[in-house]
Amino acid sequence: MQQEILDYVDSLAADLQHWRRDLHHYAESGWLEFRTATLVAAELHRLGWQLQMGREVISAEHRMGLPDAATLQREEQRAIEQGALTEWLPHFSGGFCGLVATLETGRPGPVVAFRVDMDALDLNERLQDDHRPFRDGFASCNAGMMHACGHDGHTTIGIGLARTLMTFAAQLNGTLKIIFQPAEEGTRGAKAMVEAGVVDEVDFFGAIHIGTGVPAGELVCGCDSFMATTKLDVDFHGVASHAGGRPEEGRNALLAAAQATLALHTLTQHSGGSARVNVGVLRAGSGRNVVADRASMKVETRGGSNQVNDDIFARTQQVIAGAAAMYDVEHHITLMGSARSSQPTAPWVRFIRQQAAQIAQITSRVDSKNQAAGSEDATWMMERVKARGGQASYLIFGCDLSAGHHNEKFDFDESVMATAIKTLTLLALNIDQYREEEK
Amino acid sequence: MQQEILDYVDSLAADLQHWRRDLHHYAESGWLEFRTATLVAAELHRLGWQLQMGREVISAEHRMGLPDAATLQREEQRAIEQGALTEWLPHFSGGFCGLVATLETGRPGPVVAFRVDMDALDLNERLQDDHRPFRDGFASCNAGMMHACGHDGHTTIGIGLARTLMTFAAQLNGTLKIIFQPAEEGTRGAKAMVEAGVVDEVDFFGAIHIGTGVPAGELVCGCDSFMATTKLDVDFHGVASHAGGRPEEGRNALLAAAQATLALHTLTQHSGGSARVNVGVLRAGSGRNVVADRASMKVETRGGSNQVNDDIFARTQQVIAGAAAMYDVEHHITLMGSARSSQPTAPWVRFIRQQAAQIAQITSRVDSKNQAAGSEDATWMMERVKARGGQASYLIFGCDLSAGHHNEKFDFDESVMATAIKTLTLLALNIDQYREEEK
Amino acid sequence: MQQEILDYVDSLAADLQHWRRDLHHYAESGWLEFRTATLVAAELHRLGWQLQMGREVISAEHRMGLPDAATLQREEQRAIEQGALTEWLPHFSGGFCGLVATLETGRPGPVVAFRVDMDALDLNERLQDDHRPFRDGFASCNAGMMHACGHDGHTTIGIGLARTLMTFAAQLNGTLKIIFQPAEEGTRGAKAMVEAGVVDEVDFFGAIHIGTGVPAGELVCGCDSFMATTKLDVDFHGVASHAGGRPEEGRNALLAAAQATLALHTLTQHSGGSARVNVGVLRAGSGRNVVADRASMKVETRGGSNQVNDDIFARTQQVIAGAAAMYDVEHHITLMGSARSSQPTAPWVRFIRQQAAQIAQITSRVDSKNQAAGSEDATWMMERVKARGGQASYLIFGCDLSAGHHNEKFDFDESVMATAIKTLTLLALNIDQYREEEK
Amino acid sequence: MQQEILDYVDSLAADLQHWRRDLHHYAESGWLEFRTATLVAAELHRLGWQLQMGREVISAEHRMGLPDAATLQREEQRAIEQGALTEWLPHFSGGFCGLVATLETGRPGPVVAFRVDMDALDLNERLQDDHRPFRDGFASCNAGMMHACGHDGHTTIGIGLARTLMTFAAQLNGTLKIIFQPAEEGTRGAKAMVEAGVVDEVDFFGAIHIGTGVPAGELVCGCDSFMATTKLDVDFHGVASHAGGRPEEGRNALLAAAQATLALHTLTQHSGGSARVNVGVLRAGSGRNVVADRASMKVETRGGSNQVNDDIFARTQQVIAGAAAMYDVEHHITLMGSARSSQPTAPWVRFIRQQAAQIAQITSRVDSKNQAAGSEDATWMMERVKARGGQASYLIFGCDLSAGHHNEKFDFDESVMATAIKTLTLLALNIDQYREEEK
Repeated sequence: MQQEILDYVDSLAADLQHWRRDLHHYAESGWLEFRTATLVAAELHRLGWQLQMGREVISAEHRMGLPDAATLQREEQRAIEQGALTEWLPHFSGGFCGLVATLETGRPGPVVAFRVDMDALDLNERLQDDHRPFRDGFASCNAGMMHACGHDGHTTIGIGLARTLMTFAAQLNGTLKIIFQPAEEGTRGAKAMVEAGVVDEVDFFGAIHIGTGVPAGELVCGCDSFMATTKLDVDFHGVASHAGGRPEEGRNALLAAAQATLALHTLTQHSGGSARVNVGVLRAGSGRNVVADRASMKVETRGGSNQVNDDIFARTQQVIAGAAAMYDVEHHITLMGSARSSQPTAPWVRFIRQQAAQIAQITSRVDSKNQAAGSEDATWMMERVKARGGQASYLIFGCDLSAGHHNEKFDFDESVMATAIKTLTLLALNIDQYREEEK
Repeated sequence: MQQEILDYVDSLAADLQHWRRDLHHYAESGWLEFRTATLVAAELHRLGWQLQMGREVISAEHRMGLPDAATLQREEQRAIEQGALTEWLPHFSGGFCGLVATLETGRPGPVVAFRVDMDALDLNERLQDDHRPFRDGFASCNAGMMHACGHDGHTTIGIGLARTLMTFAAQLNGTLKIIFQPAEEGTRGAKAMVEAGVVDEVDFFGAIHIGTGVPAGELVCGCDSFMATTKLDVDFHGVASHAGGRPEEGRNALLAAAQATLALHTLTQHSGGSARVNVGVLRAGSGRNVVADRASMKVETRGGSNQVNDDIFARTQQVIAGAAAMYDVEHHITLMGSARSSQPTAPWVRFIRQQAAQIAQITSRVDSKNQAAGSEDATWMMERVKARGGQASYLIFGCDLSAGHHNEKFDFDESVMATAIKTLTLLALNIDQYREEEK
Repeated sequence: MQQEILDYVDSLAADLQHWRRDLHHYAESGWLEFRTATLVAAELHRLGWQLQMGREVISAEHRMGLPDAATLQREEQRAIEQGALTEWLPHFSGGFCGLVATLETGRPGPVVAFRVDMDALDLNERLQDDHRPFRDGFASCNAGMMHACGHDGHTTIGIGLARTLMTFAAQLNGTLKIIFQPAEEGTRGAKAMVEAGVVDEVDFFGAIHIGTGVPAGELVCGCDSFMATTKLDVDFHGVASHAGGRPEEGRNALLAAAQATLALHTLTQHSGGSARVNVGVLRAGSGRNVVADRASMKVETRGGSNQVNDDIFARTQQVIAGAAAMYDVEHHITLMGSARSSQPTAPWVRFIRQQAAQIAQITSRVDSKNQAAGSEDATWMMERVKARGGQASYLIFGCDLSAGHHNEKFDFDESVMATAIKTLTLLALNIDQYREEEK
Repeated sequence: MQQEILDYVDSLAADLQHWRRDLHHYAESGWLEFRTATLVAAELHRLGWQLQMGREVISAEHRMGLPDAATLQREEQRAIEQGALTEWLPHFSGGFCGLVATLETGRPGPVVAFRVDMDALDLNERLQDDHRPFRDGFASCNAGMMHACGHDGHTTIGIGLARTLMTFAAQLNGTLKIIFQPAEEGTRGAKAMVEAGVVDEVDFFGAIHIGTGVPAGELVCGCDSFMATTKLDVDFHGVASHAGGRPEEGRNALLAAAQATLALHTLTQHSGGSARVNVGVLRAGSGRNVVADRASMKVETRGGSNQVNDDIFARTQQVIAGAAAMYDVEHHITLMGSARSSQPTAPWVRFIRQQAAQIAQITSRVDSKNQAAGSEDATWMMERVKARGGQASYLIFGCDLSAGHHNEKFDFDESVMATAIKTLTLLALNIDQYREEEK
């Protein structure tokens, strides 16, 4: 039986490639996955999955880093022109491009959920012959949006998994869920889905990623090295005046930002582990001879533990408020993203490791991955699942890359998609063999 | 005779309005006055003035704040489309839009020179019915360029003056010059003309401005309150790195800029008089999670005296170099403009006052103007004239304004143009009455 | 008659020298003039002046920069050992070393008041033979206290004036007052006397100084160049922690002080005139490996006008509060001194000039003095007198100095004291000749 | 035999207490251990150990954080008055208070060396009845010096160990060394001994500490958590000027220090592990109204690895030089101390663990200790021993403390001294049982 399933997945290769390249071509950045979401919805509906969509699975008020209304509208229009299915679009309109597909087997068993993400990066793809997507005609046709992190692959894995599980639904027990998340880049989307309750009933949870420097053939069964992070935009608003003629009438937002910047970078000594602050972008002032009345900063904090990040974020807010007060300017902080640090649950990691041993393409299995220093908002889902007594892990499927993630030349070996589908399928198929205690 | 001349100027009113409104409509920013310069050249050539143009009157290496080559090329093309005279254009091509017109009377006498400026501001003009230039159809047709400081009027005064002087050339003695300067905004253009030697033989020099808050009917005969200033662009160039993963590999240009900003603003205590520094614009960094490898600042220094400004500018350079060294980043300073503080010469101011007394439209005459705190690069010309033993002054012709200078609603009472032409004409006409000593 | 008076003053020379050298030897710093005050009190009482002393003429709550209680007690004891007169000491005990002497002539006439100050500087006097006070045995015997500004001379002038006026009391009209002020250094004492009302009834007020770079023989009749100033001590109080082991538990007062310092020095651009801020002293932290929980700063602001200083002081308080908030530390500001900018009243300056013309030793008279940039708290008295309709000025008697003020080698030509007494006496004697309008 | 030795150590209890309390009473801070060193020298000479002293074991040029000459001289005098043995004193005079005692058994075998330190802290001991040393009459009689870290115990352990080893010398093989180090506080002394070559021939090295939060009865066999550190003093030297009158003539050392302080605290983000910078003390300026010409800072850097600390120290130097350049002031950096991070060698740690198992008082043995974040300069010795092929470890003997280290109420349970002597004696006695490979 199991071999039949693995063979079935192999048979999907051409379809997977087709899907992935289509998604790659029509890359859509976070909260703007209008075309992507309608195609996923149509396909999973066709396969027979029950769907929850848009506001059902995304808490409006917990969305972070949402594009402005004009952008949302313009991009929805663009999506329509690029083939978004208008019968499904209303669900996602206004920046609600997430969906959860559910398969109730009718047989007893746990709820097993997998999360994939769908968004591209705000990046221009390389349009040169040394880059396969361009050479083969599937480079992004959307300026400033590129699948340079592999989420096109993730979404495709989700679709392939949906097809496989439905095909072999008779062999499954309990409930299966596939979560298609928007806006993972910038760690903006997961929290809003968690707040909508999408993982509240989940017993076993797995989020996935491909690549990330893991060698081809290797599976990281329980990545535990994500840093907790908070992303924030800061605006200072003062009073402009002529710098030569009436300097004392100005309230200098640029100076407030400069002071805040220096102070923020002094916050990173913490005995609890790694601590980071970065003022990555600063824009201030309008003219050489004008006291700057506006300054904005893009800031992120990170911590090796949730506590460290929470501490630093609390102090970050103090610093910003104090710097504004120093220069008698107003300030505003907008939360743009956040993720948690999260430890995978050990028995579930062991189970993943056992199941993966049955897949020929996986030649090496490790429990964890050192020194990532990256962040991932699936951690919000992991933490919620664990808080409610479930098991959670984060799987990384190693594969060959043409360039590092977030690079304009990023591309990946598409065979990893089948490997991932096989792994997730076996986890669902054999979940009744899961044991809490180590043998 | 004199009354005849004054009447003649009054007869030019319609022509002056026409000229001014044409220039206003086709506003051209600093170093981009291609159309303007060709029209001035053609008209003065027609009148019989000898012309020196472009590189003859502008030292290429001393130009400051020049737009980039692409902009120069694009705007020259735009000028052609808007009626620039292609037979004259080669003189000005590449950002050399200045000219000096000379009238040798053949009779003994001093060299008397007047300067007018031709550039618009980088500003969008108000396109609403409450703004006369829009209502009457002569608002700027060039986005981001607007005559909001009155230089359209100044250029027109120059043309009207040329016509008047040529008409009455038989009554004049010595040599007359009219200097049409580009790029006064940002104090970028005058020094390059001075370095080309355009005022080296001048005995009597007058630069003019209209408005600036001086009441209609009043003439400031010797404005002495301009602050010396230096405009500079600063670039810091460091090394980017992932702020979470490899922070120690970054060399943070944003932090260098923040330190420099604070330090620059501490330099303004000076016993020699008013002292100013402004970091008006700061742009740094590319992404929230990237250690910023680039930062740029638009800075200006000012001083109530040349010494104060020179002191502050010297320390500004130290601060910037030191801040770069602190963070192990490179830095580059580009001079973008500069002007001097300059005291008018007293006998010449007295002479201006006497002559102006004969003009009915000038109902009040004052020697100086308090507390401007602005800057003006005609001061470079004044200082050069004085250094070579000449007399120099700066005249401001009061007039009603619809809004402050540099405002999108700026407009002025066009009758001031005739008043200015009359004044300058009398100065030229009666220069033989000039006496060094006060009577 | 007048010559008789001038001759009388000349006859005091030996006494004046004796007084001055005694005061110089027993130099007493601000608020610690216990011995000085008792000697002045005894002498003026002997002469027949009415005395108001201590709390009668000093508002306790308005004293600034008072030494701590232990110092006050110790120095009072020291004063007793050095000959302070214990019958008068209770009036001044606890830091109330001021007195006002009044002579009511019983004849109609205005209230004329002169102020002298009595305090030494916190400085060690030079104890070398190249310094006359040491050579002649009257250098300060009190470590850390030295009359290096000439207030010993001022006090002596006050005493000599008291003697002269009483001797010729029959020729005087109205009311005469001599104000002996403590703690002028640091501009700490005058406000407390003003708040006690000592100049509320004064019609003509003159404060004096000797030296200050004015040439011997010259009198500045109306010094107008004092800057308004505020002196403040700032304390930040955070939380200490081990810098290696628990950095996040610290609340770093040193960093707050560093941020505040930079920000304070950015406040000095003002179109209203000269503006100054100086963080002159910063002391922070207790150990290399401890997050600093304490920081203190000695700060002063100055302004060419009262408005400028008030603006800067207001912003200074904002900066300090904001910096403290940035680092979550507490802060406390203590007012340590203050003085005003004050313009002398013109008719009174003219009168001073006229009267001084009759004194042979005054060979040059000028109205004002340029570019002092110093501060003086007699300005509080001037402003109060003017606010209540009186006339006020500040007189500087030029004299030869051995070194600049506040220098360990400071000494002055003692003959200036008689000149000052003569001048003030003539002002009192001839006050009935005062005319409001210029002749 | 072994039991006999252990019993012998128990018999020393009264002597150990006597020694320790004498050292505690005459506490001597780093580089000033004159009395202590002479007493140790006399006793070990008496026992028959060969001694190397002073300049033989301390490289003059590598001493860090040495007190000034006046202090050295004064404290040497003080030591004489307190019983320092003048026949031994010349060896240590001038700040060379270290010694190395050697016992050559004449039998083949390795060189085994143990290090103890002798210095007190710059701290006033609590003089209240709630503090045993005061109650029992052995509190420090030297103001500002207190054994608040247990080095009095360490020195006593060294002496007791010397006595024990000599008593049982016939049972020993190879060579034994005991290193008595000065100035461990501030990590100032070890490097100078290493540079003098004192551990160059050592095969097995152990440094010890008592307390540090380890529970009584527990032995940490190989503490591996010391942070690498560098201690530095920084001096900025500018130009003073009158802050009101001539601000532009000043070169502000205080502002340079403020900028440097902020920048130094931004250096602590490093992917290589914990990173620390602390400006613990800042002193700047002389008067409120004077531009500060002097500023000094006490700084330390730390790193979880030597690389991290080296990186941060390199950047620290850049920051300081750059800040000085910003304000045109001079700077000087003085190295005041340094220590390394060092991993104990595993086979030696295992051997220590095995031997300690034979000592009844040691009820718990652990290999390492988490999260100390402290620093210790014995690491310089460990690194040198390892670099030359030897084995090195750092042992911590848990014991009850009355208060934390560096606290004015610090005291410890003196029975830990015998336990330490027993452990070190067994290591020496049984060194022939040492095996490289784990069994």
